[in-house]
Amino acid sequence: MSSAAEVLCIGTELLLGNITNGNARWIAEQLASLGIAHFRQEVVGDNRERVIQAVREAAGRCRVLITTGGLGPTPDDLTTEAIAAAFGARLVEHPEVWADIQAKAAGRGRACSPSTRKQALLPEGAAVLPNPTGTAPGMIWTPVPGFTVLTFPGVPSEMRAMWQATAAPWLQQEGVAQGVFASRMLRFWGVSEAALAEDLADWLARENPTVAPYAGAGEVKLRITARAESRQAAKALLEPVEAELRARIGRACYGVDEQNLAAVVLELLRERGQTLAVAESCTGGGIGAALAAVPGASDVFLGGVIAYANAVKQALLGVPADALDTHGAVSDPVARAMAEGARRVTGADWAIAVTGIAGPGGGSEQKPVGLVHIAVAGPEDTASEGVRFGSSRGRHWIQTLTAGEALDRLRRLLLEG
Amino acid sequence: MSSAAEVLCIGTELLLGNITNGNARWIAEQLASLGIAHFRQEVVGDNRERVIQAVREAAGRCRVLITTGGLGPTPDDLTTEAIAAAFGARLVEHPEVWADIQAKAAGRGRACSPSTRKQALLPEGAAVLPNPTGTAPGMIWTPVPGFTVLTFPGVPSEMRAMWQATAAPWLQQEGVAQGVFASRMLRFWGVSEAALAEDLADWLARENPTVAPYAGAGEVKLRITARAESRQAAKALLEPVEAELRARIGRACYGVDEQNLAAVVLELLRERGQTLAVAESCTGGGIGAALAAVPGASDVFLGGVIAYANAVKQALLGVPADALDTHGAVSDPVARAMAEGARRVTGADWAIAVTGIAGPGGGSEQKPVGLVHIAVAGPEDTASEGVRFGSSRGRHWIQTLTAGEALDRLRRLLLEG
Repeated sequence: MSSAAEVLCIGTELLLGNITNGNARWIAEQLASLGIAHFRQEVVGDNRERVIQAVREAAGRCRVLITTGGLGPTPDDLTTEAIAAAFGARLVEHPEVWADIQAKAAGRGRACSPSTRKQALLPEGAAVLPNPTGTAPGMIWTPVPGFTVLTFPGVPSEMRAMWQATAAPWLQQEGVAQGVFASRMLRFWGVSEAALAEDLADWLARENPTVAPYAGAGEVKLRITARAESRQAAKALLEPVEAELRARIGRACYGVDEQNLAAVVLELLRERGQTLAVAESCTGGGIGAALAAVPGASDVFLGGVIAYANAVKQALLGVPADALDTHGAVSDPVARAMAEGARRVTGADWAIAVTGIAGPGGGSEQKPVGLVHIAVAGPEDTASEGVRFGSSRGRHWIQTLTAGEALDRLRRLLLEG
Repeated sequence: MSSAAEVLCIGTELLLGNITNGNARWIAEQLASLGIAHFRQEVVGDNRERVIQAVREAAGRCRVLITTGGLGPTPDDLTTEAIAAAFGARLVEHPEVWADIQAKAAGRGRACSPSTRKQALLPEGAAVLPNPTGTAPGMIWTPVPGFTVLTFPGVPSEMRAMWQATAAPWLQQEGVAQGVFASRMLRFWGVSEAALAEDLADWLARENPTVAPYAGAGEVKLRITARAESRQAAKALLEPVEAELRARIGRACYGVDEQNLAAVVLELLRERGQTLAVAESCTGGGIGAALAAVPGASDVFLGGVIAYANAVKQALLGVPADALDTHGAVSDPVARAMAEGARRVTGADWAIAVTGIAGPGGGSEQKPVGLVHIAVAGPEDTASEGVRFGSSRGRHWIQTLTAGEALDRLRRLLLEG
């Protein structure tokens, strides 16, 4: 049985176990969403002979081979050269690629190192697969009838941008994609994957659209996937399923697809013409960073205070020494005073504050690692509550969940108001 | 060239992109630490014909094949049967395995479902690879001279326990493991991968230890890998190489292995008994979050101000309205005033401040997207400089590089002082 597509990841770091092959997973997901059958993945190291062998074998089995890795400027980046050699093709320089590489280096105020010039070489007859974000382009090349190879760099962000901009449309135009899949990811905060899966057991068994749950860091996602003859028909299958799932699960569904909690909260505030500040202790700036990661955040997000030390909580947020002494830094009165202080000093309409024990040290029986107090101060009043995230998954987990939970509490307040 | 070991992961969920292949990474790491050469990994779905084909191909290339997945009780668990079929062997039941499966079910207070009985079947001549934590055992089987297959379940915890208890000792006894590998990762900031590779061209061509460069987000890494008879001997090979590379590259090398810039800066300040604050505009709290991510940061990192809006720069950091009006928010005078303000209001010995244009909007010809001014204020004086990160890689990249560059500037100042 011949396979429509195979994936070949090239990189000695994969064979040494230095990194996880996240590119293979991402590409697999994309192929599935395009309805492209994909029966095999391979990994080989930065070794010319083994790349040649793997490419020749794939040419005998599949119609499209996707490769990642080995497009950089160093001597062990040999993917392009090895693929050309697999079919006895010579390499030719693409002057427009070399010009682009030089322009990008200049834009960063750097001289263009001579070794980068080999990135402008492609096998004769290959088309450039443009890399909008990095220097090394990929290629789309049909060395023998019925077999096309698409090459991508190993850097995930570059690979993904190139896939979306060029490869996915190409696969559809060429008819490699069969039918059209449309999918929609619903995102949930404040509900467990197991509970969601039990509630929706009837849905998870359906065929078209399918509904599948995924657990993320503190969030749960449901992917709805529909297959049809056209994108429009696939979307028409999706929509009633999305509506029914939203109706069943309610406000725990905070967004869809690439939306994140920070973007959703910013948009809710933007609609009201209101502003936001933060006061962060145990997250050290992570909530602010999540807000600032959203393009255009500046019309809503004003900033705030990273009050990691108690002295900063007092000096910059006006948290009373009393509250710190009597209740401790991880307490509702302190979280409240931090949120109210952040509103006052920044002039924002809303402020969220977090103070907790991220661990691994600093916990006690009464205030264990993973305990965080979260406050939201608004134009009307301030709400604060202690939340326990547990200690077993570690500091990073506690900080990530704290940021998400704080944003979600504000989101729910804004939806009620 | 024949390979000592290959890895074959079996599971349709991998080809659909539902899960990342963490098993392949873990096994790769184990093989490397045992000194077993490993040149290829494959993934196929739960499909009898494709498993048979992949196993036969591997038998022609390698001495040991490690498989994961497909050992469970359901109809799509067909690894054992397919491997037996690949070599025309019949399956025989191992009564002690069936007894063990029943005993484990009883221990969990469950009836033993009839479908689990197939897990007691192995090809004639295969040895049981015991599964201490789950029900499905694996096997160690030499179907043809010079080729042995070891099968593991896909559940990571079960696979790992079986590897440690049985497979690793077997690989050593059989002489598949050849010496041991030791490796060290050197981490660099402020130098490009291409420049590093050119400087070290002689090193990159060496054999034992090998030296290989990798690019990360703004940083470059060099992995040194040595092979020897014992761990101690391998480490003894590493050390002079590390020393010479550090001597050649100097202060661009900021750390080793899992160290990051934030941890290195905190440690340098801890040694001096000094404290640190931040003043962040375009990173929105990302520098603080990186510092707070390091366990035990609180004895050095006090906090600071997220001065996203200009009004917050003025109100909380005392940035003069003059400086904002005359030079604009993205300028050396403002970065300077932010850093000095952060020192003053928090009482920290050092402060780093960043103000820039993360994009995609907000750029101009004179101040393009990617321009960031970074200031470091210390007990003696304040240094500030504009840096261009370019716009092509986007907002997240600019924010990440800004945080790294700011921490690195402080690191270099601390090393000079």
